[in-house]
Amino acid sequence: MTTRQIAIYDTTLRDGTQGEGVSFSLQDKLNICQRLAEMGVDFIEGGYPLSNEKDVAFFEQVRELDLGKSLVCAFGMTRRRGIAAEADPGMLALARAATPVCTVVGKSWDFQVTEIINAGLDENLQMIGESVEFLARSSQVVYDAEHFFDGYKANPNYSLSTVLAAAQAGAKWLSLCDTNGGSLPSEILKTVRAVAEATKKYDLQLAIHCHNDGDLATANSLAAVQAGCNQVQGTINGIGERCGNADLIAVIANLALKLDGYQLLGGRSLEQLTELSRYVYETANLQLRNSQPFVGQSAFAHKGGMHVHAVNKAAHTYEHLDPSLVGNERRILVSELSGRSNIIALTTKHNLQSDRKLMDQILAEVVSQENCGYQYEAAEASFDLLVKRSAGSFTPHFETIKYRIVSGDRDVLGHQAFAEAIIKLRVGDSEIFEAAEGHGPVNALDSALRKCLGSVFPSLEKMYLVDYKVRVVNGEAGTAARIRVNIESSDREHVWRTIGVSENIIEASWLALVDAVEYKLLLDEGHL
Amino acid sequence: MTTRQIAIYDTTLRDGTQGEGVSFSLQDKLNICQRLAEMGVDFIEGGYPLSNEKDVAFFEQVRELDLGKSLVCAFGMTRRRGIAAEADPGMLALARAATPVCTVVGKSWDFQVTEIINAGLDENLQMIGESVEFLARSSQVVYDAEHFFDGYKANPNYSLSTVLAAAQAGAKWLSLCDTNGGSLPSEILKTVRAVAEATKKYDLQLAIHCHNDGDLATANSLAAVQAGCNQVQGTINGIGERCGNADLIAVIANLALKLDGYQLLGGRSLEQLTELSRYVYETANLQLRNSQPFVGQSAFAHKGGMHVHAVNKAAHTYEHLDPSLVGNERRILVSELSGRSNIIALTTKHNLQSDRKLMDQILAEVVSQENCGYQYEAAEASFDLLVKRSAGSFTPHFETIKYRIVSGDRDVLGHQAFAEAIIKLRVGDSEIFEAAEGHGPVNALDSALRKCLGSVFPSLEKMYLVDYKVRVVNGEAGTAARIRVNIESSDREHVWRTIGVSENIIEASWLALVDAVEYKLLLDEGHL
Repeated sequence: MTTRQIAIYDTTLRDGTQGEGVSFSLQDKLNICQRLAEMGVDFIEGGYPLSNEKDVAFFEQVRELDLGKSLVCAFGMTRRRGIAAEADPGMLALARAATPVCTVVGKSWDFQVTEIINAGLDENLQMIGESVEFLARSSQVVYDAEHFFDGYKANPNYSLSTVLAAAQAGAKWLSLCDTNGGSLPSEILKTVRAVAEATKKYDLQLAIHCHNDGDLATANSLAAVQAGCNQVQGTINGIGERCGNADLIAVIANLALKLDGYQLLGGRSLEQLTELSRYVYETANLQLRNSQPFVGQSAFAHKGGMHVHAVNKAAHTYEHLDPSLVGNERRILVSELSGRSNIIALTTKHNLQSDRKLMDQILAEVVSQENCGYQYEAAEASFDLLVKRSAGSFTPHFETIKYRIVSGDRDVLGHQAFAEAIIKLRVGDSEIFEAAEGHGPVNALDSALRKCLGSVFPSLEKMYLVDYKVRVVNGEAGTAARIRVNIESSDREHVWRTIGVSENIIEASWLALVDAVEYKLLLDEGHL
Repeated sequence: MTTRQIAIYDTTLRDGTQGEGVSFSLQDKLNICQRLAEMGVDFIEGGYPLSNEKDVAFFEQVRELDLGKSLVCAFGMTRRRGIAAEADPGMLALARAATPVCTVVGKSWDFQVTEIINAGLDENLQMIGESVEFLARSSQVVYDAEHFFDGYKANPNYSLSTVLAAAQAGAKWLSLCDTNGGSLPSEILKTVRAVAEATKKYDLQLAIHCHNDGDLATANSLAAVQAGCNQVQGTINGIGERCGNADLIAVIANLALKLDGYQLLGGRSLEQLTELSRYVYETANLQLRNSQPFVGQSAFAHKGGMHVHAVNKAAHTYEHLDPSLVGNERRILVSELSGRSNIIALTTKHNLQSDRKLMDQILAEVVSQENCGYQYEAAEASFDLLVKRSAGSFTPHFETIKYRIVSGDRDVLGHQAFAEAIIKLRVGDSEIFEAAEGHGPVNALDSALRKCLGSVFPSLEKMYLVDYKVRVVNGEAGTAARIRVNIESSDREHVWRTIGVSENIIEASWLALVDAVEYKLLLDEGHL
């Protein structure tokens, strides 16, 4: 079977930054660029050199990186009306970026030409042709046909004439953009085929650029490849404006692992895909999306006793692919639906499976805790501590003698909404007593706990709380119901989650905090 | 052009709860069921009556709701091996649920039959046939063919024989499940067509049930409909195991607004879709997904001067559809305001729409509150109070002078996990001061508040708290982040929800409690 090379074009650093809340420092951009090159991404769009100084600096400094075969692209727009390409500031900024590839975007939709940029239809064709021709003198040109699919629906002949203008001027790639993200796979398929037919006499290839407004960006990208596109544009994790761009993670994984006949990323394995996804989230300071296909933390998580039994027996019957192929891993969740098989799977790393009596004891303990409102599926760290306690292999680093919080809306000086905590702990032979104020009672407890332990365990300084969640477990009893607190903690290297349950939210929070700290200390000691 | 009716089958309350961190109280399930019925969802799968008491209670209490034409479904598995359907505990639990529809899942993949449930291939056909036949005596039967697409790939004849067994036994719907979520649209299309051909002589219709492991659940659901399925199964927001189920929001919006020839939801408008999505997130205590297609807060957000200019000039050239069609809204400037149209709709009962200045004032107030972390989608009572305050038609029944709580794990007598509250209020010309103990600080506050007000407003005795939820609004700052508290209250006749936001969980809880009590008093006075 013949295989077709599919080029991957990443625009995380340009179109991705249009996403709400996304912004990268110069160093962030260089770091991500390096990672993308290591992954074998063919084209890396670095920015829009006319738009800001940061992008200008990026194109200077990126030349110092060893990017292997990856090509850096600078992005810009066709020349303005009434000015020669040679004199247009945008064109000149692109030329100054001195990248091996220039990507230039132009209008394909007649309505956009006449109503938005107020140009004549022929004038727009000249703007496209002259811009591509100018840039093609010094670099490979990717022509981005904005709104191509909407334009093709409205006026197929005119939209075709815009890409033909780019083709005649020497563009090596015609990228068909579903700018508004509303096209359906069947429309993409049909339109790409028509463009392939119309451009077959030119020495160029087609690319696809999708957005996810209809939740179809992955499907649309795959349909375009099947219809003849040899390049897919997108961003890591699909970050981008509105509903985002096509997620290259899902596109790459589907092309490489699900479809036959395509080769990409220079034939590299995809085992770095999960790490790359999380690296980009971390760098962009965005929350991971647990349910993200292929690379999410829940993507291969199993809940429910019967499933888990089956997964242990024959993983492939409950997973669409082997998670290690994309660098992800299977996770067995402990939940209210959990049976013995979940527990056994979860304790594998502790090497306790052969101790039948201990396994029974752990199972009984989990059932008893779940009856009290605990749920370990989102609290693996507390589960590990439970196993270690049951196995007798855990010695607490400190013991709580007492704690107390006072909170209200007026302190003695009349300040509003105050919270104070006092804590007394035993560490070894010493008793430590500290007090702290906080924004709320849990923050005050956390601060006081760190004050108590900071001098004994300095590594706790690196630990911080990522998320704090509270649920009522049995709602029927109103505020007298049990409260479940989940805390997510991190030290930048690891992320772990703990749980506490009590009728009293302060006690529940305290239990989860204590587990979080104990887990961190075990991590530091290499005991996990 | 002829139109085909496409039935929507929601399994948020069953398959959705397999999602990591998703759990609903009984009241949550009843509330969501009511909302789905108002949306015109044809089938509402309520749970698995064999698995737990909560689901058994759900099927009892759901009979009291007025669900219009929506049909409630109970979910279960085919009978076990070696036992008659009439004697099988799962079958009997389904029958006892007494729902108009029973959904029963069985094995389609020969490997699953022989290796996972250790049954013979013929024996499995009998299990399917006898189970469907037993349930069809008293209800409409939906047969869920688990792993159908994987089974069909491995052994097409056997997988077809399993659905034919269900068909012959009287199933009204055959639901083809892409259980592992790894199929491609082209595979779905081909396989659905084959099943349609093989089952055409039976009086039944086909359904599709997709998971999102390949990021293709929406595309796969649409492909299945185009290939002949007349029912789509999924969950609101796509919550569910691993990468989730097909997101009914995206499927419904695509079918109704993008494709021609389909009718669904009894022809209802989709203007409640955004509100429904947010209601389910809030009830499940999950973070909204800003980039979610159609209903996300960023789905129609525009960033960057040129786009904004163009959007103002001709919105349709930068939006794939009119956001108001799905109850969402365009956001041009950075604003956290969600659902302007919802807000206008919500004020209808106050008859204020004609007062343009007051409407502007209310909108400004909502924007300002949302910027502080408030969200009114799941706190209609607090929203009503906000409107009344803005309109000057609200006189508080009491005023807070101060409150304080003390909580810890040892009181002076050594009792564990105590909580005490003191409150001072002004009611009319009197000051009232009371203290109370509680299971936790919020319970103590609630008790003290009732002690203060009980003699003045005896009807408060009938009020009780149904649910109490806590969220961190901006997780980055750990325990110092803002805390959002949602309280659901009832007096057996009405249910209402209030909200409070603060850095201090005690203050946030107090604000929500005060609103809950004020709302109850307004209800009693007939002022709502």
